[in-house]
Amino acid sequence: MLFDIKLDKNSPVYIQIGNYIKSMILNGMIRKEEKLPSTRELSNMLKVSRNTIIYAYEYLQDEGLIYTKRGKGAFVCDVSINLKKDNWNIKWDRLINDYGKSAEKLDIIKHEVPWKKGMISFKSISPDENLFDVEEFKKSFLNIMSLEREKILNYGYAIGYKYLIEYLIDYMKNKGIDTSNKKILITNGFTEAFDIILDCLVNKGDKILCENPTHNTAIKIMKLHGINPIGIDLDKDGVNIDSLKKVLEDNQNIKLMYLIPSYHNPTGIVMSPKKRIEVYNILKSHNIPIIEDGFNEELRYSGDHVSPIAALAGKSNGIVYLGSFSKILFPGIRIGWILGDSDLINYLESVKRSKNIHTSFLDQAILYQYLKEGNFEKYIKKARKIYKNKYEIALKYAREYIEAEDILGEGGLHIFIKLKDIKSRDVLDRCYKKGVVFTPGDIFYVDNKGDNSFRLGISRLSIEDIKKGIKIIGESIKEIKK
Amino acid sequence: MLFDIKLDKNSPVYIQIGNYIKSMILNGMIRKEEKLPSTRELSNMLKVSRNTIIYAYEYLQDEGLIYTKRGKGAFVCDVSINLKKDNWNIKWDRLINDYGKSAEKLDIIKHEVPWKKGMISFKSISPDENLFDVEEFKKSFLNIMSLEREKILNYGYAIGYKYLIEYLIDYMKNKGIDTSNKKILITNGFTEAFDIILDCLVNKGDKILCENPTHNTAIKIMKLHGINPIGIDLDKDGVNIDSLKKVLEDNQNIKLMYLIPSYHNPTGIVMSPKKRIEVYNILKSHNIPIIEDGFNEELRYSGDHVSPIAALAGKSNGIVYLGSFSKILFPGIRIGWILGDSDLINYLESVKRSKNIHTSFLDQAILYQYLKEGNFEKYIKKARKIYKNKYEIALKYAREYIEAEDILGEGGLHIFIKLKDIKSRDVLDRCYKKGVVFTPGDIFYVDNKGDNSFRLGISRLSIEDIKKGIKIIGESIKEIKK
Repeated sequence: MLFDIKLDKNSPVYIQIGNYIKSMILNGMIRKEEKLPSTRELSNMLKVSRNTIIYAYEYLQDEGLIYTKRGKGAFVCDVSINLKKDNWNIKWDRLINDYGKSAEKLDIIKHEVPWKKGMISFKSISPDENLFDVEEFKKSFLNIMSLEREKILNYGYAIGYKYLIEYLIDYMKNKGIDTSNKKILITNGFTEAFDIILDCLVNKGDKILCENPTHNTAIKIMKLHGINPIGIDLDKDGVNIDSLKKVLEDNQNIKLMYLIPSYHNPTGIVMSPKKRIEVYNILKSHNIPIIEDGFNEELRYSGDHVSPIAALAGKSNGIVYLGSFSKILFPGIRIGWILGDSDLINYLESVKRSKNIHTSFLDQAILYQYLKEGNFEKYIKKARKIYKNKYEIALKYAREYIEAEDILGEGGLHIFIKLKDIKSRDVLDRCYKKGVVFTPGDIFYVDNKGDNSFRLGISRLSIEDIKKGIKIIGESIKEIKK
Repeated sequence: MLFDIKLDKNSPVYIQIGNYIKSMILNGMIRKEEKLPSTRELSNMLKVSRNTIIYAYEYLQDEGLIYTKRGKGAFVCDVSINLKKDNWNIKWDRLINDYGKSAEKLDIIKHEVPWKKGMISFKSISPDENLFDVEEFKKSFLNIMSLEREKILNYGYAIGYKYLIEYLIDYMKNKGIDTSNKKILITNGFTEAFDIILDCLVNKGDKILCENPTHNTAIKIMKLHGINPIGIDLDKDGVNIDSLKKVLEDNQNIKLMYLIPSYHNPTGIVMSPKKRIEVYNILKSHNIPIIEDGFNEELRYSGDHVSPIAALAGKSNGIVYLGSFSKILFPGIRIGWILGDSDLINYLESVKRSKNIHTSFLDQAILYQYLKEGNFEKYIKKARKIYKNKYEIALKYAREYIEAEDILGEGGLHIFIKLKDIKSRDVLDRCYKKGVVFTPGDIFYVDNKGDNSFRLGISRLSIEDIKKGIKIIGESIKEIKK
């Protein structure tokens, strides 16, 4: 019996030895009824304490892999499996249904050019994690653990962590929203929120309106629900009203409209207060519910107050508001929420439960504690300043170096550029070779348009890289023009 | 202008004051161009420092709600919303599709008798949180935070946290499973794992086999996918082979079989090693993939080693193994995994991304750190002992007090009881009035059978309550018999 085991310092030694012997037994390398070395022998052999070996053998005994005969030592149980050379080979590819195939096909991470180390990537619109206050986060964890202790680690409720919900209700009230006939459901971020709303409200082939372009993940989720969304063109202050009216004349039975009024993804447009009211009134008159994506509205740089559309509705229940701090704060913990009519939330809660019981209660509790102590306001003040600076520099450089038809974006974490008669994927090909990547705009369009456009995410880049990257993009465009 | 604000100690005072004024402005209680009190006046009025008021006003200015005129003070911006008396009332109930309606209807939490404080509840099979080692958990958090820092709070990958996956691959190898052509996807617990597998593999009306009775959440998920599962009767050592063969003769195109071989929910049966091989071979010969639910197999009390079915398959790829520590450890953080053929996991990964991007990276990292340090082995040793004791007492008392046709369960966190010609819901009605609740067995059956059965979850009850509760159940049965 050869014990060729390398011990490391990462986990208890008795478990390492136990698992090593376990695997030898299960793989038939030690056969049934074979005698293991005595604890003394093995402790000498492996140069560990005898107690460690005793623990390791106890562990194996607990696992039912060895038994001891008094005074004779430890022996291997009969756990042999004789099917090891089995050759059942299922062609899983052929078993995947249309939904699974579409999900893979629409998974852009798998099909777009990959980022490589050292590249300047304008692809991300994630927050810069260096702005996160880790010490405050740790403090929030320790505080909530001493309050909630083990309770927070056991099952919670599908609807969410009570104190977080109460906090968010106040938070929404502070945006001017009447929450009296509404409820909040906590979700795993925006993505789950939008997914379960469509699960509950739409059927294959239904009609949904959205801005065109719009958030690519929203397009993916709509397509995975068997829906080809109808896109409405954008003016510089949001949805083009004539296009909206035209589409409403031409189409019956529209199920809902999805809107991103603030720092719209991908264009960065902020819908004007006037237009918010206009759009709200038009959709109301057609009785079409609005799914309002509160995406990054917390990031407003300027001092202009713009209320969410949900604030316009008062006690009316036609708007479902999707919120998420995770777009700017701690995306890794995946917490978003849906604020909507109580009846609707009642159904969504059951769907949520059927999909994953609930969102991590630990994460909800930490976030609650973090928010309650006023850390978000401190963070957002700092973040706004830094992102505003990046945005202004990106805009300045884009205007200077990129010959564009239009440069959009009023702040937030990205700008959007439309070129004159040049395909952005051609630009991307050239830039990729020079170590610069960005997101081609076509993925944001619902009608295969936008091949002359692209989005530059600036949140995680240094000022230097923003400048350098935009110059390279500008040069690549000039090369193509020649 | 009346400042009727109650300050608390939970969050920074300047934010409380800022939010109070914000809400007054947004609700039209302070009108545009109105002058706010000077910072000095307000600090006197509210008995807080002048700096606090200065911060509050800065906050309101950042939000675009007030502006200052040099030397004249702070004034309210024009943010009025005139739609407040709006009355758009959508009947959301009528918009919910069949899926949403079914999810609500099948949501037993909403439709079963509710637990009330002071009751003895045998409903739960969650772990007893008092066994969790909170100090070790905290240590794991602090250790992983000092290693990963802010990185762990930003976006991760759909597939899961690399180190946790590597740990779990080793963990599965240690169960004797050949992982060489397989991959792991991290999910939000078993529920999400099973849900996204069905999303990817089945279509409405497909045939799925399962044990009868089986895990009620699995039944719910199958039904929500438009599937009426075909149940196979159980012997005391697992699936009845004749029934299985009969069903396979009578049915073509069966998509897959779902199995819970260890501490089967709800019966507590452990499928014998011999039967595992038999079932495996039969399904293999029909080319029907097995979804193996590793439910609580870590809880084996006795020293008998029983390999998961996935260990029988060697390099064959016909088995998809669903694992979860969360059933016995930290259910609140919702972490499970799918081990399966690499091609399959590739699709499931895209589906996972489309549903919620990924499972909390913080939670995955903490769990990894906790496991790596050998805490799980320590915990499970303690937990096994305590649950074994509860199980043995429950069994003893059930045999003594309950006149049953059959009492099932070989360990785990529950036992399952079949009565002679008595409906368990009648028993439940009586018990409820006496402050005892349990789970009626019918919810675990796929064919409306089992109305004479019920499940007793014992994990979270004290020994005293187990005794007391079982006596009350026994008495209630006797009362009905009279």
